[in-house]
Amino acid sequence: MTKWIYNFGDGKAEGNAEMKNLLGGKGANLAEMSALGIPVPPGFTITTDVCNHFTANDDTYPDDLSAGVDAAMASMEKTLGATFGGSDQPLLVSVRSGARASMPGMMDTVLNLGLNDETVEALAKVSGDERFAYDSYRRFIQMYGDVVLGVDHSIFEDILEDHKLRLDVNLDTDLTADQWKIIVDDYKREIESELGRPFPQDPTEQLWGAISAVFGSWLNNRATVYRSLHNIPADWGTAVNIQAMVFGNMGEDCATGVCFSRNPATGENHFYGEYLINAQGEDVVAGIRTPQPLTIAEKATQGADMPAMEEVMPVVFQELCDVRDKLEAHYKDMQDMEFTVQQNKLWMLQTRGGKRTAKASLNIALDMESEGLINKREAIMRVDPNQLGQLLHPMLDPDAPRDVIGRGLPASPGAATGKIVFSSKDAEIWTGNGESVILVRTETSPEDISGMHVSEGVLTSRGGMTSHAAVVARGMGKPCVSGAGTLHVDHHAKTMAAQGRVFAEGDVITLDGTSGEIMAGTVPTIQPELTGAFADLMEWVDEVRTLGVRTNAETPLDAATARKFGAEGIGLSRTEHMFFDPKRIVHVREMILAKDQTARRIAVDKLLPYQREDFVELFDIMKGLPVTIRLLDPPLHEFIPHGDDQMQDVADAAGVTLAALRERADELYEVNPMLGHRGCRLGLTYPEIYEMQARAIFEAAAEIAKRGDTAHPEIMIPLIISRPEFDVFKVMVDDMAKQVMAETGTDLTYMVGTMVELPRACIQAGDIAQSAEFFSFGTNDLTQTCFGFSRDDAGSFLDEYYRRGVLTDDPFVTIDQDGVGELVRMGVERGRAARPGMKMGICGEHGGDPASIHFCQDVGLDYVSCSPYRVPVAKLAAAQAALLAADD
Amino acid sequence: MTKWIYNFGDGKAEGNAEMKNLLGGKGANLAEMSALGIPVPPGFTITTDVCNHFTANDDTYPDDLSAGVDAAMASMEKTLGATFGGSDQPLLVSVRSGARASMPGMMDTVLNLGLNDETVEALAKVSGDERFAYDSYRRFIQMYGDVVLGVDHSIFEDILEDHKLRLDVNLDTDLTADQWKIIVDDYKREIESELGRPFPQDPTEQLWGAISAVFGSWLNNRATVYRSLHNIPADWGTAVNIQAMVFGNMGEDCATGVCFSRNPATGENHFYGEYLINAQGEDVVAGIRTPQPLTIAEKATQGADMPAMEEVMPVVFQELCDVRDKLEAHYKDMQDMEFTVQQNKLWMLQTRGGKRTAKASLNIALDMESEGLINKREAIMRVDPNQLGQLLHPMLDPDAPRDVIGRGLPASPGAATGKIVFSSKDAEIWTGNGESVILVRTETSPEDISGMHVSEGVLTSRGGMTSHAAVVARGMGKPCVSGAGTLHVDHHAKTMAAQGRVFAEGDVITLDGTSGEIMAGTVPTIQPELTGAFADLMEWVDEVRTLGVRTNAETPLDAATARKFGAEGIGLSRTEHMFFDPKRIVHVREMILAKDQTARRIAVDKLLPYQREDFVELFDIMKGLPVTIRLLDPPLHEFIPHGDDQMQDVADAAGVTLAALRERADELYEVNPMLGHRGCRLGLTYPEIYEMQARAIFEAAAEIAKRGDTAHPEIMIPLIISRPEFDVFKVMVDDMAKQVMAETGTDLTYMVGTMVELPRACIQAGDIAQSAEFFSFGTNDLTQTCFGFSRDDAGSFLDEYYRRGVLTDDPFVTIDQDGVGELVRMGVERGRAARPGMKMGICGEHGGDPASIHFCQDVGLDYVSCSPYRVPVAKLAAAQAALLAADD
Repeated sequence: MTKWIYNFGDGKAEGNAEMKNLLGGKGANLAEMSALGIPVPPGFTITTDVCNHFTANDDTYPDDLSAGVDAAMASMEKTLGATFGGSDQPLLVSVRSGARASMPGMMDTVLNLGLNDETVEALAKVSGDERFAYDSYRRFIQMYGDVVLGVDHSIFEDILEDHKLRLDVNLDTDLTADQWKIIVDDYKREIESELGRPFPQDPTEQLWGAISAVFGSWLNNRATVYRSLHNIPADWGTAVNIQAMVFGNMGEDCATGVCFSRNPATGENHFYGEYLINAQGEDVVAGIRTPQPLTIAEKATQGADMPAMEEVMPVVFQELCDVRDKLEAHYKDMQDMEFTVQQNKLWMLQTRGGKRTAKASLNIALDMESEGLINKREAIMRVDPNQLGQLLHPMLDPDAPRDVIGRGLPASPGAATGKIVFSSKDAEIWTGNGESVILVRTETSPEDISGMHVSEGVLTSRGGMTSHAAVVARGMGKPCVSGAGTLHVDHHAKTMAAQGRVFAEGDVITLDGTSGEIMAGTVPTIQPELTGAFADLMEWVDEVRTLGVRTNAETPLDAATARKFGAEGIGLSRTEHMFFDPKRIVHVREMILAKDQTARRIAVDKLLPYQREDFVELFDIMKGLPVTIRLLDPPLHEFIPHGDDQMQDVADAAGVTLAALRERADELYEVNPMLGHRGCRLGLTYPEIYEMQARAIFEAAAEIAKRGDTAHPEIMIPLIISRPEFDVFKVMVDDMAKQVMAETGTDLTYMVGTMVELPRACIQAGDIAQSAEFFSFGTNDLTQTCFGFSRDDAGSFLDEYYRRGVLTDDPFVTIDQDGVGELVRMGVERGRAARPGMKMGICGEHGGDPASIHFCQDVGLDYVSCSPYRVPVAKLAAAQAALLAADD
Repeated sequence: MTKWIYNFGDGKAEGNAEMKNLLGGKGANLAEMSALGIPVPPGFTITTDVCNHFTANDDTYPDDLSAGVDAAMASMEKTLGATFGGSDQPLLVSVRSGARASMPGMMDTVLNLGLNDETVEALAKVSGDERFAYDSYRRFIQMYGDVVLGVDHSIFEDILEDHKLRLDVNLDTDLTADQWKIIVDDYKREIESELGRPFPQDPTEQLWGAISAVFGSWLNNRATVYRSLHNIPADWGTAVNIQAMVFGNMGEDCATGVCFSRNPATGENHFYGEYLINAQGEDVVAGIRTPQPLTIAEKATQGADMPAMEEVMPVVFQELCDVRDKLEAHYKDMQDMEFTVQQNKLWMLQTRGGKRTAKASLNIALDMESEGLINKREAIMRVDPNQLGQLLHPMLDPDAPRDVIGRGLPASPGAATGKIVFSSKDAEIWTGNGESVILVRTETSPEDISGMHVSEGVLTSRGGMTSHAAVVARGMGKPCVSGAGTLHVDHHAKTMAAQGRVFAEGDVITLDGTSGEIMAGTVPTIQPELTGAFADLMEWVDEVRTLGVRTNAETPLDAATARKFGAEGIGLSRTEHMFFDPKRIVHVREMILAKDQTARRIAVDKLLPYQREDFVELFDIMKGLPVTIRLLDPPLHEFIPHGDDQMQDVADAAGVTLAALRERADELYEVNPMLGHRGCRLGLTYPEIYEMQARAIFEAAAEIAKRGDTAHPEIMIPLIISRPEFDVFKVMVDDMAKQVMAETGTDLTYMVGTMVELPRACIQAGDIAQSAEFFSFGTNDLTQTCFGFSRDDAGSFLDEYYRRGVLTDDPFVTIDQDGVGELVRMGVERGRAARPGMKMGICGEHGGDPASIHFCQDVGLDYVSCSPYRVPVAKLAAAQAALLAADD
C-alpha cells in the first residue's frame, strides 16, 4: 500500500530532508527539523503522489487517503491535548502547498483553519482575548473565501474599508472585538449571497476544501506560467502540509519571538533576538508593543528596562539556546528563527539562513571556519560577492536621519555629499574653489568625464544601470544614482525639482549609491575597513581561483586603486577618455574639423605627446603586468558639444565659424550612433588616428624599456566584423612597432587582438583568430546587438519585461547565457580551434558581476576585467566559480 | 622533360580550355580558340609551373626555358613573316599575365614589346603612319618603364602634360609624329637619369624583363591581398602569355572592327558590328573616324553612306561570318568579338559573351532554345534576373537627349517625370490639382508614405540603397533615386540646388531609377512589354522553381500588382503603413498622447474599422493565398512630426498644447531608435494596440468567410527575442481568435508566427519554434545587428570598406552568407528540429536579390517575399537556384 501521509512534530518525523521529491521542500524541511529533535508544532504532509493522482483522476483522491488524514489529525489532537472543532481547547491548523522547487507566491495557503462560530468563542476563552479571536476568525474567512471558495478578495477589503470609514478608524488594530464580530457577520452574509450557500462551519469540510484548493492551485494559470518560465515539469506536483497552529497569546506563560543565532549586524557570536510575553507574532511586527531583548547581556548593551527572556522564562530560554546550538551545528550557518511559547512549551515555527550585513557575513564565515564548523571552501562560498562590494566604499551611517527627496537606480555604490552643480564646467569651477560637488545631469556623455572626475558623486534623471553615467562612475569608484525619473532637472535654470521642493546650484545633497536614495543635506558616513577578515578572505580567494582578474582603467588614479585591490593588469583602457582633458580636446576638435587628411594629421600629431605620457604612466603603475589598450571607439560627434554657448566656444577655439561647426556636427549626426561610424570604422576612414595611438603606445613602451623595465601592451581593435578588416589594423600596428623599435633601438613585446563585441565577430571568430592574438569579449555591445536593445533606451520597456516575467535579470547586469552567452561560447570555441590556447577575457560590465563570472569560468575565459572597486568582488566570485567547477 | 611552353595560333594549339591550371585562364582560352580553327595571332604560353619554379628559386628559370622561348619566337616570326627586332617587318609582341582564376587589374601587362629606336622606324614605314609608330613607342616605354623598370608612371604623365601645355594641345591625338619623338626622347632621358642606365634597346632583353616582371607581380602586395580576400592559394601561380601584335593600319588592305554575333540591343539574330579600313582598334573607340556597318543589310537600316565591309572585303567578311558561326556554335552564346585585318589576313583578337540589354538577353535565350542551340534549362540560366527587372518598369527612351543635373543611387528602377514638391503634404495638394509630382526630400520617413504614394517618383539627397525611401519606393514599384549627395535641398525655401542651377517647386525633372540619373525637364519613356518572350520565360521558370515567391505589400494597389506578376501570397504586410492615412493618423496620435490605458484604448478602438477594412481588401485580392501580417513595428515617435508648424497642427488636431506634444515627443525620443521601444515591445507595453490589430484581422477573415471564401492570415509578431516573450502574444492572439469566432459564428484558420530578425531569435529558434508556427527571417534588421551597422548611417564608411576590399558587396543588398547567413541557417535548423516541416520564409530586402535567393534555396526556406515589381526577378532567380541545386 502506498504511503500517502508522513507525520512530523515535536521532535520526531517519518520523513527527512532527502525526501523533497515526495514531500516538497517545506514538508521535507519540517520533517528534518522534527527529526533533529526540534520542537516543531505537529502536523503531516500529504505527498506529491496524491497531487498527481488528484490531477489524473478528475480531482479525486486515493480511497485510503481519508482514513489516513483522520488518523494524522487524531495524532495531532493527542500531542497538543486539543480537539479539531472542539469547543474547549480547539485545534486550529494551517494548510500550505509545498512543491519540490520553491515557487514563491505562486500557490495558496490557508491559516487558522478549524475556526467557526463555536470554536472562535473557545479561542477567545483560552486566549483571554476576544478581539484576537474574532480578528483571527475574519482573517480565516477572508483567506478561505478567496482561496477555497473563489470569492474575490476585494469584496472583503471593501467591507472592511466601509466599516473603518463608518467607525472613523484608521488601523485594523483599533477595531474592537464587537466591531470584528459585525464584520465577520457581513463577511459570512456576503459569501452566502455570492455562492448561494453559507460559509462552511464543519472543520472537516473546511479541511478537505483547503486540501483540494492547494492541489487545484498546482494547475492554476499563475503556477503554470511560472513553471513554464522556470522549466519545472507539471508532473512534479505539490505536497500539502497540514500543521497545528500554536499561540503565544494565551496568558503570561506564553510568548513569541524572533532570534538569530549570531548578531546579524556585526556577525559576533552572541545569541541575539527579541520576544514579547503573551503576544502573537504579528504583534512583534506591528510595533504596538516594544519587543524586549532575549538575553541579559543584550539587555545591558541596549540599556533596556524590561526583563530579558533569560530572566523571565529561564527554562524555556535554555531550551531555545539548545535549539539554537542544534540548528547552527546542523545547518552550519547563522540561523534566523521564529518561535512561540504556548503555556511554557517552546515551539519552533521556522528556521532559515539569516540575512546579514556584509560585515556580518564576512565575520561569520571566517569565525565559523576558525571554530571548525565549516572549512575554508565553505567560508569562501558563504560570502555573497555582491554584498562584499558594500564594504569597499564609504557607507552612510545607517543610524543617521535621512531627508529622502527621491530615489533612482543604485548605479555605483558608496555615499557622497556635496553641493549640486549642473554642468561639467561648473563642477570644475566649484571644485577649483575648494568645494565638494555632486554633478547633476539629465544624462552624461563623454564630455562630462572631467566633471565626473572632480565630483564626489553623480546623479542623473535618465539612464539605467549601464548608462554612461553608471558605467563611468563605477569605473571611477564614484557613487552614482542614475535614472531618478521623479527629479526634474533644468540645466538652463540650474535647478532640480524633487517632490515639490526646488534645489538650486550650491544646495547640498547626499547620494546613497548603494540604495539609490537621494537626500537633502549632509548624512554622516562610515569609512570601510579593508584589513582583518577582509584581507584573510582575499588571501584564501587568491589561492583558489583560476580566473585572472584585471581592471578597466585609463587614469593613473583608477589604475593605482585597482592595483591596491589586487588587479592583475588592465583589461580595458578606453583611450577616448583621455581625449577630454581641456588641453587635448582642442586638438581633438581640430582633428574633427580638419578639411583634409593633411590638416587632420597635423592635429592628430599634437595629441601624440599626451597619449604617450598617458601610456607611460599606466605602464609604470602596472609594472610588468599586461595593459590592454583599446584604440579610439566612440563616434566623433561625441567630442562636439550640443549647447549653443559651448558650440560658440569650440568654434572660437578651433578658429572656425559657428556655422561651419554646425555644418560639421550635422554631417556627423547619426540616427543610430551605436551602430554607426565608430570603433575600427574610424580607424579605417581616418587611419592617422589609430597610427598616432599605436605610435604613442610603442614610444611609451620604449621609454619604459630604456629604464630597464618592461611594458606589456595588448593593443585592442574595437568593433571588428571580419579577418580582412582586422588585418588592415594588424598590418598597421606591426609596421608601427617595427618603426618605433628601429627608431628607439629597443626590443618590445606586444600583442594585437580584438574586442569581440558584435555577433558577426563571434561567428567569424575562427577566421579572425588566424590573425588576432587575443580576444576580449565586449559583452555590453554584444548584449545590445544580440537582443536589439539599446542600453540608453531599453529603460522604457524593460520594467514591463520583468513584471511579466519575460526577463528575470537585466541582461546588461548579468550576462544572458542563453543568447549572448551562446555567442561568447561560439567565439571562444572557434577562436581556440584556430589558435590553441588563445588568451581570452571579458571587459564588459559583466566582468564585475558574480553570476556572469561563473559563466566566464564555465566557458573557459582566462580573465575578467572590471572597474577597480569591483576587483575584490570579481576575485571572490571567481574563487566561488572555481570551487563549483571543481565539483563538476 | 617538363613542357614549359605551349604554342598556339592561326588555327592550331598545343593546349585547350581544360588546361587552365597549367596555362591560366587567358592561355587556355587562346589555345581553345586556336584549336577551333579560329585565326588567332600566334603566340605561346609559359606555364604556371615556371612561375612556381621562379618564386621557389630566387627569381630564376628552368635551364631549358630560354631555348624554348627562342624556338617559340622563331615559330611566330615564321608564321607572320616578321622578325623580332627586325628593321624591315618588325615582330612586336604583347606580354600578359594569366592566372587560373581571374584577378582583374591585379597583375601587369606590356604591349608593343620589341619596339626600339630602329624598329619604330620600320613600323612607321610598314604602316605608313609615323605618328602612330612613335605614339606606340612612347606608350611602350611608358608601360615598360612603369611595370618592368619600376619608374613611377606619374613621371611620364608629368612630362606629357608639360609638353601639351607648352604646345597648347588638349588631346593626345593632336600631337604630331615629331612632337611624339621629342617626348620619346624625354622619356628615355628620364629613365636613364632615374636608373643610371639607358632604356633597353635589345628586344630580347626587353622580353625577358617583361616575363620576369609578370612572374614577379604574382607576389606583389596588391595581388597578395587580392588572393587573401578571395581565398586563392599562392601556389597556383600565374602563366605568361606572349602573343604577336597585329596591325589594322598598314594600308587599305587592313582594317579593324568589333562585332556581335547577334544584335545586342534587340537580340535579333543578325550579324552586327562596325569596322574601319586602315585603322587600329583605338581609332574605333576614340571617335576620330566614324566606324561603318559590317553588313549591307545594316547599312541600309542605318541609311549609312559608306560601303559595308561585306562590300569592300567580301572574302575576309565571309571568313568573319564563318568565325561568327563557329564561335556561337561553340560557346552557345551571343559573342562579342574583336578582329583586325592585316594585309587581307583576318586575325581574331578576342571573343567573349556579349553584353546585351535586358530585352536582347531574353530574346536571345528564347531564340537559342527554339533554334536547338541550348535547352530550356540553359535558357533559364542565361537571363540575368537583375537585368530582367529593367523590363518591368517604363524606361527612358535611350535615344532621347538628357539634361543631366545630378546622379544618386539607382534605388528603385523605372522612369518618372513630374513637378518637384518638397513635402508630402504638398505632394497631396499638387496631385489633388491633377499634377504629376516628384517628391524631393533630404530623406523620407514613414510620415511621407502618403506623399510617396501620390508621387510619380522619389528623390532624396541622403540615404542608401536600403534607406526608407529606397525600400518603400521599391515596395511601391515607384522610381527612386536616393542619396544624391550633390543636391542641396532646402525644404524651407522649397528649392533644390544642383550643379549651380536652382530648381523651385513646380519645376519639372525626370528621374531614371535604373541608372540613378536626375535630369531637368521631361525625357520621353517607353512602356514595358510583358508578353511574348517574357511570358514564355516565366512559364518555364514556374515549372522549375521550388521556392515560393510572395510579395511585401500593404496597399490594394501593391497587392494587385504583385498578383499580376504572379505572387503566391503576401509575405509581409507592414501594418504601420496603414496608419499614415490622414483620417487615421489623427487617432494614432490620439493614442500616443493618451494619458492612460483607458484613453489609449478609446483611441485605438477608433482605428479598428479602418484596419478591418484594410485586411478585408487584402484577403479579397489574395483570395485563398496566405497573407502574412506583421503587427505594429516602428517606434511611436515615427508618428509624430518634427517641424514646428506640423507639430502645432498635430497639437491642435489632438486637442493638446504644443508644450504637451513636445513633452511627449521628448519622452519618446530615443538615442538608438533601431534598438529601442519598437516591435513587440510596443505590444507588451501597449497591449491594446496589438489586441485591436488581432481583432481587425479576425473580423476581416470572418467577413470573408461569411461570403463563402477563405482567408489565410498568418499573424507575425516582430522583433521577438525568446519564447516566453512570444507566448505573451500567442496567448493573446489565440484568445482573440476564439472571441471573434464565437462572436461571428465562423470557423477561421490562421497561424501565429514570428519575424526572426535579431541574433537572439536565431539562437533561441528551437525554443521559440515550440510555440511559433512559422518563421519569416527579417534579414534587414538581422544584418544591422549582426554587423552592428545602422543602415541609415553606414553610408559614411561603407565606401571605404569596398575601396579597401574589406567588403565586396553591400550586405543590405546581398545577404552576407558568412555572418548573417549563418544566423539564418541556425534559425532554420533549430526551428525545424523543434517543429519538423516548419514553414519558413524571408521578407527582408534580400528576398528580391538573386544572389540572396540562391542562399535561401540552399538553406531550405519555403519562400521568399519581395516588393511587387521584384516578383518576376525573384521567380527567375529561384528557378536558377533550383537548377543549380539539382546539379549538386
